[in-house]
Amino acid sequence: MTDATTANVDPHLWIWGWKDEKPRLLHTMLRVKDFDASLRFYVDGLGMRVFDRYEIESRRASCMFIGFNDYAGGGLIELAQYWDAEGPPTHGSGYGHVAIGAPDITGMLAKLEAMGVEVTLRPRALIGAGPRVAFVKDPDGYAVELIETRSDQAVGG
Amino acid sequence: MTDATTANVDPHLWIWGWKDEKPRLLHTMLRVKDFDASLRFYVDGLGMRVFDRYEIESRRASCMFIGFNDYAGGGLIELAQYWDAEGPPTHGSGYGHVAIGAPDITGMLAKLEAMGVEVTLRPRALIGAGPRVAFVKDPDGYAVELIETRSDQAVGG
Repeated sequence: MTDATTANVDPHLWIWGWKDEKPRLLHTMLRVKDFDASLRFYVDGLGMRVFDRYEIESRRASCMFIGFNDYAGGGLIELAQYWDAEGPPTHGSGYGHVAIGAPDITGMLAKLEAMGVEVTLRPRALIGAGPRVAFVKDPDGYAVELIETRSDQAVGG
Repeated sequence: MTDATTANVDPHLWIWGWKDEKPRLLHTMLRVKDFDASLRFYVDGLGMRVFDRYEIESRRASCMFIGFNDYAGGGLIELAQYWDAEGPPTHGSGYGHVAIGAPDITGMLAKLEAMGVEVTLRPRALIGAGPRVAFVKDPDGYAVELIETRSDQAVGG
């Protein structure tokens, strides 16, 4: 039956694949107020790409998938707008952040700052001689952590 | 300088790597009330593994990294407890969920339900003949989406 079933799979709907053997993390979803503002931050600022946009009638929502990898590579962000949402997204104390590996944290942060992005923690090592970490806010106020992932860019390197 | 710098890198602190060429999504952080309850859900229930636990004095927080992959593979979740937190994590309207690819969504959901996990959406295709999707709640009330990622387990397959 596998062949017959696979033949019926629409890849545009089964975007996360239809032959996985094991579970994996696919994406993190954030409700946003303004797709254009989010794309300026995540695409123009951080360098992500836009993969797809869907209008999901059954959930009364629009969503866009963005990330550095493709669907198979995982680690995407889903930006969502609910058609009947009342007011902009609000924040509790629970959700923390997404963390992005930044080979050049200094350059990435400089670019974001030039775009007017709010920096809430300037680069510093949080534990001993570990990588430097910075925090910024996306257009909806979600925290985004930048973690240095290349040591020859590090202080003293 | 690269060799000298790399020689100084402590892999236990540079857990996300120190030779990355490109940015990538590393993890999603959620504040939780009770690590043990979270581990029952994410490890015993969903099948993730625990990688490391850190006590971060400078942030007055404890954190654990869990996931299906290792650090290099990305797509991890950071569970965090802030030492000075007042009360359990609260939820706004903004943060949505993490989505997990489930080759066997029926089996995964049955296991979670047997553990007493709350199911907020039973498996159904959200768009046409796409994969079935379910929603459950983790012990802190965060939504977790399960997306079918194997078509020969699908209805009629």
